[in-house]
This record gives sequence, C-alpha cells and structure tokens, in this order.
Amino acid sequence: MRILNDLREIFNQYLNKNIFTQSPKELYEPNNYFLSIGGKRMRPVLVLLGAHLYKKNYDDVLPAAMAIECFHNFSLIHDDIMDAAPLRRGHATIHEKYSPNTAILSGDALLVYAYKFLAQIPQNYLKNILDIFSDTAIEVCEGQQLDINFETQETVTEDEYIWMIRQKTSVVLAAGLKIGSIIGGASNEDAEALFQYALNLGIAFQIQDDILDCYGNAELVGKQPGGDIIQNKKTLLLIRALNHAKDANDKSLFEILNQKDIQVAEKINSVLAIYEKYDIKISVEQTKQDYIDKAIAHLNTLQLEEEKKVVLYQLVDYLVKRDY
Amino acid sequence: MRILNDLREIFNQYLNKNIFTQSPKELYEPNNYFLSIGGKRMRPVLVLLGAHLYKKNYDDVLPAAMAIECFHNFSLIHDDIMDAAPLRRGHATIHEKYSPNTAILSGDALLVYAYKFLAQIPQNYLKNILDIFSDTAIEVCEGQQLDINFETQETVTEDEYIWMIRQKTSVVLAAGLKIGSIIGGASNEDAEALFQYALNLGIAFQIQDDILDCYGNAELVGKQPGGDIIQNKKTLLLIRALNHAKDANDKSLFEILNQKDIQVAEKINSVLAIYEKYDIKISVEQTKQDYIDKAIAHLNTLQLEEEKKVVLYQLVDYLVKRDY
Repeated sequence: MRILNDLREIFNQYLNKNIFTQSPKELYEPNNYFLSIGGKRMRPVLVLLGAHLYKKNYDDVLPAAMAIECFHNFSLIHDDIMDAAPLRRGHATIHEKYSPNTAILSGDALLVYAYKFLAQIPQNYLKNILDIFSDTAIEVCEGQQLDINFETQETVTEDEYIWMIRQKTSVVLAAGLKIGSIIGGASNEDAEALFQYALNLGIAFQIQDDILDCYGNAELVGKQPGGDIIQNKKTLLLIRALNHAKDANDKSLFEILNQKDIQVAEKINSVLAIYEKYDIKISVEQTKQDYIDKAIAHLNTLQLEEEKKVVLYQLVDYLVKRDY
Repeated sequence: MRILNDLREIFNQYLNKNIFTQSPKELYEPNNYFLSIGGKRMRPVLVLLGAHLYKKNYDDVLPAAMAIECFHNFSLIHDDIMDAAPLRRGHATIHEKYSPNTAILSGDALLVYAYKFLAQIPQNYLKNILDIFSDTAIEVCEGQQLDINFETQETVTEDEYIWMIRQKTSVVLAAGLKIGSIIGGASNEDAEALFQYALNLGIAFQIQDDILDCYGNAELVGKQPGGDIIQNKKTLLLIRALNHAKDANDKSLFEILNQKDIQVAEKINSVLAIYEKYDIKISVEQTKQDYIDKAIAHLNTLQLEEEKKVVLYQLVDYLVKRDY
C-alpha cells in the first residue's frame, strides 16, 4: 500500500532525526538499539494516517506518532523481561543483550520520553490528547496484568480473553489513529468512529495471530507453528475448544494439556485433531470476520468523502489477510 | 514545624481519597501497599509549600503533588528491584512481597498515573509544568544510571558524585517546590530561585545522609552505621579520602577496600581511622554547609515578604540538622 509506505518513510525520517544522543550512553544506547530493530511501525503510521485523512501537514502530528512508538517499545521492553523472552523481531531482547536492570531503567526513560514528545503537539490539543494517551497506557498495563493472570487462572472465558487482547494490543492502535485524526482536525464523532474501527480491526488482527500460530505457513510467519499449543497458551482457539470439550464431556483435551512427558509434535497433532473435531479453525475465523465487519461498519458513519475512506478499507485487507 | 505538618495532613487526605480501587487488583494493590508505607511525604509537601508561599488554595496544586509522589514511589519501586533491596522504610519491597514482574508492571502503572494526576492541573499551566515534570523524571533516570555506573567505575570524581546526587535525588525536591510555586502564581524569577534553593538543600541533605551512614546514632537513624563502608560505596567521604590517600601515596585505604576476608567491624574501624587522619568528617561537613549557604543565598533574591520566607529558613534546619 503506497500511502502506508509513504507515511512509514515520513515517520522513519523523523525517528532518525530523533535518535538519542544524550548521556549516560548506558541509558540511551539500549533504546536506540531496540528502536532500530523496529518492525512495521504500524502504530505511528496509524497516527499519521489519522492526520492524513483530514489534512496533509504532518509536522503537528509527528511528535504524537513518536510518543506512541516510544510507548509501544517501552511496553515491549518491559513485557520481554516479564516473559523472559530471549528474542524480539529476530534480535536479542534488551534484558538479554544488556541486563534486566538496563531493560527496566532504559524502558522507564523511554516512557518518559514518550510524554516529552507528546508535549510537543499544538497546545490547544494537549490536555485532550494527554488524557487519551495516559488512559491508553493504563489500559495496556491492565491488559498485560490480565495476560499474566490468565497463565495461572483455571478458566478464562471468551469475553475475558477478548477484553485482554483489546486492552493489551488493540487500544494502542485505536488511540493512535484517533489521536492523529484529532490533531488533523476530525470531529469528535469521526475520531470516535476511527477509534472503534481500529479497535475492532486490532482484535481481528490478534485473533488472526492466534490462528497463524496454529495454522500459519512457517516460512511466511517466520516461526514454527504450534508454539501456543506447546505452552498451553489460553488463546481464543484453546478457550473455545475447551468449552466444546466440556459441553461434550470429552476429557481428551484436558488430558493432553496436563500430560507432562508428551512429545512436542504429538501434542501439537493431538490438539489440532481436537480443533478439527470441533471445527475450531472455521468458527474462530468467523469470529475474526465478525470483528472485521464491526470495524467496517464504523467506516460507514464517517463524515469523509468515499475516496478518502479507500485507504481504510485497504488497511483491513493489509492487516487481516484471508490467506495464510 | 506546624506548617509542614498541616501541608502533610492536607496531602495525606487527598492521597487517601485517591487510593486505587481499579481492577485488576493484582496491578493496583501493590501500589496502594507501597504508598501506604509512605515516609515523610517531603516531595508533595514541597509542592504544596510552593503554592502556600503565594496563595492559600491548594485544590489546583494537589494533583501536581500527587503526581510527584506517584513518580517518586515509582522510582523507588524500580530502584529497589535494581538494587535487590529487601526492605524499604522497614517494610518488604514490592519485588520481595509480590514478585519482580509485579514490581515492574505496577511501577509502570504508577508512572502513568503520575501523568494522569498531572493532567488535572489548570490547563494554562499544563505545557510548562509537563515539560518541567518530564525533564525532572529523565534526570532521575539518568542519576540512577550514573549511580549504577559508579559501582563498576574505577574512579569517581567529587564533581561526578555531586552531579549524580543532584540528578537522582535533588531535582525532584527542587522541581516539586518550583511546580507548586508556579501554580501558586510565583514569577519566573521566584520559581527559579526556589528551584535553586531546594536543589542545593537537597544536595546538602544527601551529603548529610552519607555522613549519617558513618557517624549517625544507630537509634536516631534507625540502622547500624557503616553500611556504605562495608559495601565500598563511593560516597563523598570515601571519594575524598581516596583522593587524600592518593596524594599522600598512602596505600592503606586501597588495601582495606580490596581485602575480601576482612571482618565487618574491623573494616569499619579501619576506614573510620583513615577518615579521621584526613579530617574527612569535618571537611565533608563543610561541603554540606557550603550547599546550605548556597541554598540560603537564593532565598535572598526572592520577591516575597520576609515573614513568608521564615518557613523556608526553618525547612533548612528541619532537613539538614546540625546534630546527629
């Protein structure tokens, strides 16, 4: 998508101009490293896209895009410590490459810098955007806590799971698009519709992530499928399969999950067979489609010319593909 | 001091009205615990004092006081993880009582809440106060990084040490008083003079802390003296003694510091004897007094009636006592 690439390029130029050069370097270097291994910059691109829909000047909105990107990377740095994750985007995580203490403190500094960038937006928007930003940041912390709770919680309902991915993942995408549109001059109604659009799209995206972890092409996805199954991760697929198994008084899934000495390949195949039995893939794909439909429905309420909405329809296809 | 007690009471009432009741409780309960074991509330009291000097209405300034207290506690929670400290103010630290992951995530949420409170101050001050607040928060992170660096850095100069305690400890006290005074209606000149006053007072306070760790009365200070000596902590006393020893080509201090199997009591007594030889206590007390004098000099420039300044002179005596 041409426009997304253009916006990514505009953001990356701004990011490169704002590399941390302060001292002590032990505090800032890890953040430069982490920002450089970068990813798709989806969140700051959404901030710029929000502004793009209403006007073409990005100077006012770039500090907000940077704030969202700093916040997102801060949350990844700290989540990686909590998850003891060795790799992020194929590179060593900060706590692995440097130390856990470095990951804590550099992450903290990155969160404060998020607010320093945010304070650079036009002052007439500051209070409103600051409130949206902090509320979003808190929701992400709450989502991460729920995700941690779910690891030891005996049963997780589908509603609880959807709420967790909403808080942990979707709200940042949605808040980014909303913030960009507000600074771009959107009405309150449009800003809210864009928020709901991106929120539902984000949930669909996360559900797709769960599906890909089971059914993705290893080469396309970049990792061997089945990781979630091996870890008994309570994804939407597992939660739904557990509910079906419970209703059918079928103990086989519980037994596989509790078996300590099972081979990895056998576990994956056994769980996938049970998913097959209960049509889990088809039904979870339908749930993903329901969220896509909800996202698109919010586009219909937008007070924007149809030609400006095209990119928002394209974004749906870009983020939540039908083939994998 | 009557006024400080009154301001502390006003702040504690506000704090009690703002206890975290949100869910998930696993995220918020640790912060309520940590805020409840609380300390002297010196930083929020300084915010209120800043406003008190110019007007008597505290409603506008209480959210800023709360922001400073949330930030201060966030930084303690994360510092305690980095220092592997089991106790804070005589109670278990969060990472000890709950877990390191809880201390990371609850601390993060507390930092975001600091900004949520800050956003509640009158909007005409928001941009200015937000910039001061974030700059201060970054300085504290930098100070903590310097403190970590010093542990493995072979030599630390006195200037480097003073800069570290300025960043890690003093700037929050100084920024708190400044922020309160600005919201109270102080001129830029007065706000800056109050900042410099509290900054120098904070440095004197930290130097006193170093002196107390060596020479404090165990009952008054609440801990056995000599902790810094046992850990080879590069305090102003040790840095100065090392400089004297180097100039005198006296290797005894270096040898004591590098001796692995030395008894605790013997190490403390030997180091104290060397401090005695080089008059370290007297000279460091003089340095402390120099910072007190600098602090007081800034009071002379204030455009405030002398009777309003009385509390600021009293605060000097309250924070940096002559006897210990």
